[in-house]
Amino acid sequence: MSLISRTIQLAARPQGLPKTGDFRLGEVPLPDPGPGEVLLQMVWLSLDPYMRGRMNEDRSYAAPTALGEPLPCEGIARVLVSNDPGLAPGDQVLVHDFWRDHAVRKAADCRKLDPSQGPVQTVLGVRGMPGLTAYTGLKHIGRPKAGETVVLGAATGAVGSVVGQIARLQGARVVGVAGGAEKCRHAVEELGFDACLDRHAPGLDARLAEACPDGIDVYFDLTGGDVLTAVLPFLNPFARIPVCGTIASTNAAATPSGPDRLPGFMRLILTRHLLVRGFIVDDFSADTAEFETAMARWLADGSIRYREDVSQGLDSMVPAFIGMLEGRNFGKTLVRLG
Amino acid sequence: MSLISRTIQLAARPQGLPKTGDFRLGEVPLPDPGPGEVLLQMVWLSLDPYMRGRMNEDRSYAAPTALGEPLPCEGIARVLVSNDPGLAPGDQVLVHDFWRDHAVRKAADCRKLDPSQGPVQTVLGVRGMPGLTAYTGLKHIGRPKAGETVVLGAATGAVGSVVGQIARLQGARVVGVAGGAEKCRHAVEELGFDACLDRHAPGLDARLAEACPDGIDVYFDLTGGDVLTAVLPFLNPFARIPVCGTIASTNAAATPSGPDRLPGFMRLILTRHLLVRGFIVDDFSADTAEFETAMARWLADGSIRYREDVSQGLDSMVPAFIGMLEGRNFGKTLVRLG
Repeated sequence: MSLISRTIQLAARPQGLPKTGDFRLGEVPLPDPGPGEVLLQMVWLSLDPYMRGRMNEDRSYAAPTALGEPLPCEGIARVLVSNDPGLAPGDQVLVHDFWRDHAVRKAADCRKLDPSQGPVQTVLGVRGMPGLTAYTGLKHIGRPKAGETVVLGAATGAVGSVVGQIARLQGARVVGVAGGAEKCRHAVEELGFDACLDRHAPGLDARLAEACPDGIDVYFDLTGGDVLTAVLPFLNPFARIPVCGTIASTNAAATPSGPDRLPGFMRLILTRHLLVRGFIVDDFSADTAEFETAMARWLADGSIRYREDVSQGLDSMVPAFIGMLEGRNFGKTLVRLG
Repeated sequence: MSLISRTIQLAARPQGLPKTGDFRLGEVPLPDPGPGEVLLQMVWLSLDPYMRGRMNEDRSYAAPTALGEPLPCEGIARVLVSNDPGLAPGDQVLVHDFWRDHAVRKAADCRKLDPSQGPVQTVLGVRGMPGLTAYTGLKHIGRPKAGETVVLGAATGAVGSVVGQIARLQGARVVGVAGGAEKCRHAVEELGFDACLDRHAPGLDARLAEACPDGIDVYFDLTGGDVLTAVLPFLNPFARIPVCGTIASTNAAATPSGPDRLPGFMRLILTRHLLVRGFIVDDFSADTAEFETAMARWLADGSIRYREDVSQGLDSMVPAFIGMLEGRNFGKTLVRLG
């Protein structure tokens, strides 16, 4: 048996928003699995905004993907062949892999999933990295108190939807910003946000002021861009800003024109006693077990809901990724294979 | 007796760096001290960069000074007349007062000083607000570990000189930035900094890189401006930035021209996991007793040294203030009266 894996490789470094031509499909022969290895059929692949940073030449928080190399992602796979006693054919596993449909990996790199714990693909979303990002960013940086106002963009996305729901559970008033009336309605009616503002409609500043009559105590920055700009004037003294996404500026190809807002931002940090802290989920991996216990309870009792945006087949991966960066996804972005 | 107090009032709101004409001398009759009140002769007045913020119309962390009103400052006074059993003529006290030579105040607003604890004016500097600012900014935000690199501007100023010396006591490598060769020599030879760079000499970026071969772990931001700009590329992952001064941009009258560096700064915060936090000394006033004990020990054993920049007479107050904002002071800026 010599299996060919279809894989999506980085063909060119995107300038601003990626284009279809920045990617190419390759066919790569897989080796036979050796001792301790497994042959995997990928079933779910996760698309997340952090991947955009890996496509740039400069180092983000991880090394960039080289041109011609496959792009990384988390995925869920079915074991087809196992040369390891810990895994059997048919097992489902979570693995940090690549944009491809089959893989040969060490069994030790695979985390076996228990399908009785809920839909397996939720370990890519609400039960996984995006959920842990929301949980730990609030726990360690945002620290909303009951009655405080929490604002976030990308309100119906994989991280934002969880940030808002956890902040609500902690007694905060939650105001989201999302693209379009349907997402805003979902954030309020399904996710329980106190308000959600359409970022495509005019007058975001004025609507934000109206939705936050007591100012803003936590701005969970998932996007940067227009939402950040709108939020700054309304930050209360001692407000906290967990920073875990800057997709608005990563997508922008050109150097932003002036005026230079950095000096004014530093003055704001001083005069309003702001705390601004960048983090990625790995910074708080010690909280994984605590998070998983809490999230399992919240999902079981209906306190936290989630929505998935699923496209089918490896060929849908690039359009789904570009769509997510444009904010066209509605919920956690997933690609289903096979 | 009806005493006249000479007082310096805000005549106009400064645009950028204040000018002499933004201030005017007034003569204000003082009331006779009532029960529980004291008549004070001011002996030392403190000049600190935060005062520049009070002169703007927009609210900083405190309400602005109204036009025609006297400017606030901390001072040390001698009691001339006391109608309170807690204070006697000749006592020296610390009081939050104004730019003036005499005052009638409640005794309860005055903190009696013990001259045996050291020169009384040091409670305006190394033993007081500037010292506590340095101590708490490092303790709560900067948190330097042994072997880490700490960078700060205004290295020989009232706060910076203490930041650097405490960081050295904690085992950090300390690199200062100061204006001119004489200050740089003082920082290294007298204050024990590992290096100090002249911000007036060309090539600050390259010299900073050379002085910080292992990058920068703490940037104690006392100034903003060119020092902040030079520091950003060399910040290590998980670096901390206590922000307690933005004098460079407060002095700048014009809106800074582009490019807009705010989006890039947010990306840096994310990709380098930075912690940026603004604070003023009042945020950590609970640490006052702990600080005073530590500082008394450091001063007694020579671990911490200080330098004062003293000008004589109320008429010197405005030039001394403008000079401090221009960085012409060398050590803690004080005005001695009488």
